[in-house]
Amino acid sequence: MKKIKVAVNGYGVIGKRVADAVQLQEDMELVGVCDVIFDWRIKIALRKNYPVYAFDINFQKQMMENNITTEGTLAELIKISDIIVDCTPKKIAAQNIELYKKAGLKFIVQGGEKHETTGHSFSAENNYATALGLQSTRVVSCNTTSIVRTLTALKNAGLLGKARGTLLRRAVDPWESHLNGIMNTLVPEQDIPSHQGPDAQTVDPSLDVLTVAVKVPETLSHLHYWNVQLTKKATKEEVLAAFGTSSRTAFIDYADGLTANNTVKELMLSLNRPYGDMYEVALWQDMLKVVGDELFYAYLVDNQAIVIPETIDAIRALTGLETKAENSIRKTNESLGIRREGFI
Amino acid sequence: MKKIKVAVNGYGVIGKRVADAVQLQEDMELVGVCDVIFDWRIKIALRKNYPVYAFDINFQKQMMENNITTEGTLAELIKISDIIVDCTPKKIAAQNIELYKKAGLKFIVQGGEKHETTGHSFSAENNYATALGLQSTRVVSCNTTSIVRTLTALKNAGLLGKARGTLLRRAVDPWESHLNGIMNTLVPEQDIPSHQGPDAQTVDPSLDVLTVAVKVPETLSHLHYWNVQLTKKATKEEVLAAFGTSSRTAFIDYADGLTANNTVKELMLSLNRPYGDMYEVALWQDMLKVVGDELFYAYLVDNQAIVIPETIDAIRALTGLETKAENSIRKTNESLGIRREGFI
Amino acid sequence: MKKIKVAVNGYGVIGKRVADAVQLQEDMELVGVCDVIFDWRIKIALRKNYPVYAFDINFQKQMMENNITTEGTLAELIKISDIIVDCTPKKIAAQNIELYKKAGLKFIVQGGEKHETTGHSFSAENNYATALGLQSTRVVSCNTTSIVRTLTALKNAGLLGKARGTLLRRAVDPWESHLNGIMNTLVPEQDIPSHQGPDAQTVDPSLDVLTVAVKVPETLSHLHYWNVQLTKKATKEEVLAAFGTSSRTAFIDYADGLTANNTVKELMLSLNRPYGDMYEVALWQDMLKVVGDELFYAYLVDNQAIVIPETIDAIRALTGLETKAENSIRKTNESLGIRREGFI
Amino acid sequence: MKKIKVAVNGYGVIGKRVADAVQLQEDMELVGVCDVIFDWRIKIALRKNYPVYAFDINFQKQMMENNITTEGTLAELIKISDIIVDCTPKKIAAQNIELYKKAGLKFIVQGGEKHETTGHSFSAENNYATALGLQSTRVVSCNTTSIVRTLTALKNAGLLGKARGTLLRRAVDPWESHLNGIMNTLVPEQDIPSHQGPDAQTVDPSLDVLTVAVKVPETLSHLHYWNVQLTKKATKEEVLAAFGTSSRTAFIDYADGLTANNTVKELMLSLNRPYGDMYEVALWQDMLKVVGDELFYAYLVDNQAIVIPETIDAIRALTGLETKAENSIRKTNESLGIRREGFI
Repeated sequence: MKKIKVAVNGYGVIGKRVADAVQLQEDMELVGVCDVIFDWRIKIALRKNYPVYAFDINFQKQMMENNITTEGTLAELIKISDIIVDCTPKKIAAQNIELYKKAGLKFIVQGGEKHETTGHSFSAENNYATALGLQSTRVVSCNTTSIVRTLTALKNAGLLGKARGTLLRRAVDPWESHLNGIMNTLVPEQDIPSHQGPDAQTVDPSLDVLTVAVKVPETLSHLHYWNVQLTKKATKEEVLAAFGTSSRTAFIDYADGLTANNTVKELMLSLNRPYGDMYEVALWQDMLKVVGDELFYAYLVDNQAIVIPETIDAIRALTGLETKAENSIRKTNESLGIRREGFI
Repeated sequence: MKKIKVAVNGYGVIGKRVADAVQLQEDMELVGVCDVIFDWRIKIALRKNYPVYAFDINFQKQMMENNITTEGTLAELIKISDIIVDCTPKKIAAQNIELYKKAGLKFIVQGGEKHETTGHSFSAENNYATALGLQSTRVVSCNTTSIVRTLTALKNAGLLGKARGTLLRRAVDPWESHLNGIMNTLVPEQDIPSHQGPDAQTVDPSLDVLTVAVKVPETLSHLHYWNVQLTKKATKEEVLAAFGTSSRTAFIDYADGLTANNTVKELMLSLNRPYGDMYEVALWQDMLKVVGDELFYAYLVDNQAIVIPETIDAIRALTGLETKAENSIRKTNESLGIRREGFI
Repeated sequence: MKKIKVAVNGYGVIGKRVADAVQLQEDMELVGVCDVIFDWRIKIALRKNYPVYAFDINFQKQMMENNITTEGTLAELIKISDIIVDCTPKKIAAQNIELYKKAGLKFIVQGGEKHETTGHSFSAENNYATALGLQSTRVVSCNTTSIVRTLTALKNAGLLGKARGTLLRRAVDPWESHLNGIMNTLVPEQDIPSHQGPDAQTVDPSLDVLTVAVKVPETLSHLHYWNVQLTKKATKEEVLAAFGTSSRTAFIDYADGLTANNTVKELMLSLNRPYGDMYEVALWQDMLKVVGDELFYAYLVDNQAIVIPETIDAIRALTGLETKAENSIRKTNESLGIRREGFI
Repeated sequence: MKKIKVAVNGYGVIGKRVADAVQLQEDMELVGVCDVIFDWRIKIALRKNYPVYAFDINFQKQMMENNITTEGTLAELIKISDIIVDCTPKKIAAQNIELYKKAGLKFIVQGGEKHETTGHSFSAENNYATALGLQSTRVVSCNTTSIVRTLTALKNAGLLGKARGTLLRRAVDPWESHLNGIMNTLVPEQDIPSHQGPDAQTVDPSLDVLTVAVKVPETLSHLHYWNVQLTKKATKEEVLAAFGTSSRTAFIDYADGLTANNTVKELMLSLNRPYGDMYEVALWQDMLKVVGDELFYAYLVDNQAIVIPETIDAIRALTGLETKAENSIRKTNESLGIRREGFI
């Protein structure tokens, strides 16, 4: 079988994970990763024998001077790729897109970009089919991915009325918590409602969703609290059955000792997940409560990892590797160790 | 004017603040503070020339041996008091109550105790009148006080439908953050809904309120997010006018640089508040939003301070020093620097 | 008695404290504070009835538009002042100095500036006399102040050999801990030895002092550990007696429950210190240990407050208000509540 | 080749890592892990197909009731083992030791136990040979292991005079940071000097080492600062060469972007180390400085991981699997991915 040639532009928190995940797919080949850095971070790519490219010849020179062996520049990487996943910071991504378009290359951008950059926003369990064969799509952000994933499950079960969420956002990623952190405080987002509600509607305009968001002083994961007006009275079991239809929503139990972000992180590390990554929404099964026709629940979102399987699926959708969502999702899940039976 | 003789049992976070606040009232006299400790904490009471009592003769001996001058034991303090404010830890308070009852002494317990211990739960702006002349009452907890205070304002304006809150709770008090803290994690409360909703109903059963709660890694204050179903469409101005009727709800503006717990704490310190205490609910005026008939807002609660003015009012209500809520509230507010025009 | 007219340029962490301290001196008058901000921070100055000046007419306009009443610009403030204390950020201070020099105004800069900017670095208990009548001086930084203060005491007692310190630096000030913090990590300073050793020698070149420094994730105070080679064997009592000669070094006891930064902060708040400020070096008396001719000890430094009394003394030295160090120090100490007998 | 049968008692932070490491050795077989817990933590052992034993029949019953399949009790595990590694909490270990002794079983305890429990304290690069064939040994604690490892290297190079260290200790392990943490504070150890110096001397009495220690609010690793009096003037290169003789001391460079605990942790995760474990002392090469005959340096210690290779070596020493230290160390290093050329 001919493998799809995938390039990754930006070898940061998301990019390095996408590269590793691409490597695990039988129908894909990682042809290169591209960046501008020359410190320990890119040396990891070299130790993994990934072909490293520089953004341009200036950066290539700088990288070579720092003993980073590069295979060429982004322009050259583009030529040998079938699709490129852009994981660069916001303003840089915008410029890159022009390059991809000029080269007629299929591309995927991350959730930090606007919906308009591609005209399509992607969430595998919701709208895989609509991305088939497109030139580009945007994999929505970690928070939005979790929202669409869980609300889609409720919607498909005919239970979803209006949904109101409070999002506690990790302040900064662990690797850069020596910079830009917050300490002994909470920082509300100025805008109420926050942008995640409308962002979820770029994937599925039918969702009646409003959110508020606040930055909290931890680095591990986001924590969402939801209050959903059900379309009808339902039992807890019916609700859990609905969430259970999502293969990437995993139940955890407070009574099993999983009482906080850090224990769930330790669980992931114990499962030998790379970086302790959690691709699933981890939803507290025993805390979930139905009060009349109102549903209350909480879950954790690993902001570094949740979009990785989505990105892999998006590659298959754009390139037509798989025409059916369930097939792509199954392949991705198997490669990443996402199991129907949950974590343990 | 004869002053009411007030004793404070338990010279901890709440007790030391109640003692200081009693000292500021023209119609009250602090006759003593009682505790079992003999370290720097009780030495503060001595430096302030507060009469110090020991819980019993065993503790008195221990305190004397550590050079803490005591005036006697709790039994003796009870004899010379008109009313006692119990600020001791949970299990100890229960035992004390028996002593107070036996002595026929009026008493106030804090929100950590159950409603049943006194049969009356107090929140000044809601139910001052019902506490008049009672033998005892319970000043509800910091979180519950803020909930009752804000929802009462909406209720009085005829706006309050059902209220759903997400409570981010500071993990531990600053003075003991070297013990029992949480680090780089979030700890949801196991029970959804959390106990604060029902607790608010012990003050006012008419409130339709449900809450969820989560411990967050900071020590400064609680942060509440609310989603309130209004009884009718209302403007932002109408809602703000409603909250403005509470003399202990102060508006803050995100646009004024007050964007996080720590800056609000610094504001309090800048106002020369003792301990940087904030007695008011600090509600973000510019963040508040009305979407159709739904109201969204966020506020901060200083868990060490918000119950102090309530406790002073409760003293007046039980002892009959003031029969009208507004008179007591006005006196308390003036003594503590709580101003109608807000913080700055 | 004619009071010295003092201006404060920069109403930030240090500036606002200097302004408050100047207000407390019988021989000084605060003629104005100057800044460029127009949010809650400068409103505090207005509530305290401090004359507020803008850096220039552009900022004045901006401040007026935001309802900040200003009395004029820095140029005008300079004209009515006898001395100005510059508490502005680094790069801005350099420009201001040119203005002060041009106006022939005496001025004081803070420890963030280089020694060369004034040619004199000040620490009251070490070199007050050498600052008498100078046009300008630099009050050394919080860390350096604590080092010079404590080592001077050992030196005066003839005990000081070489001193090696490890400095744990609070990561960010509390008011701005929503910005630029570090989370769940430690950040060593790249340079070993760190700059504080040489900086102490700008005050007293005779000190044999080397330091290393590391940023730690807390906001309250710096913590220093020292290993000092004594010139001879000495008892713990002799060492304590030496430290006791410094009126601004206060002993604390671990056994008294003062076991961590946060409890010491709470002690300061309990003493009704403004902002919970600690002007003294708080040295653990019972932890201090002499092993042979080696001395080990640890102390806390309140980085927001320790330079405040030093700055007040520097004003007196430059303007000649007091020719003797001990007289100025005594006046300053009394005004700020610094007591020979310690905290409690 | 007959494999040595190894049991692990206590499946916590250390125990689970020892079990995984034993699994990686060609000359060892994991015959079982024993514990008393029945939540997610022990379920990990089951997912890894480790034979699980209960401490006794009471715990076995409790575990079975919670669907934890057990193979038997500790008594039965002891019977089938050649050696047992005790990783239980302090007081429990003491009781276990009696069981092991009664059964004539070789055993290893962790650094939390006292030297006297076994009469031998182990650090592979220092005293492997002295442990050969003993019935038991104590693998010294994480901090002590790092001290002995680094000072042994200096000693072997003839450079080591007296060594004075300041130890910044992570406050709590990540998995339990929802309990017992410290927040926004620093907690000095009451005793100066701290116990680590004498503890290092249980391995090597010739070391002239004194330490002070302080708990810091992070969960990732310990950070040590050292000031060593060299026996003679030496160049930086000579010192680095000395440290380089330790196969488990790895150099890192600040200039390579490894500027804080969290980035070094991310490096370990990037290397696909299980749990992001770092078995090596990570010593900042470019920060290290020689000033005259004084040496200054800093390094990181992963308190969860550093004793794992030591424990594997201790198994070989006690059982006589390898008589030469270098052979055991080489095998252990290879199995765990510890490389002579360092991390990257």
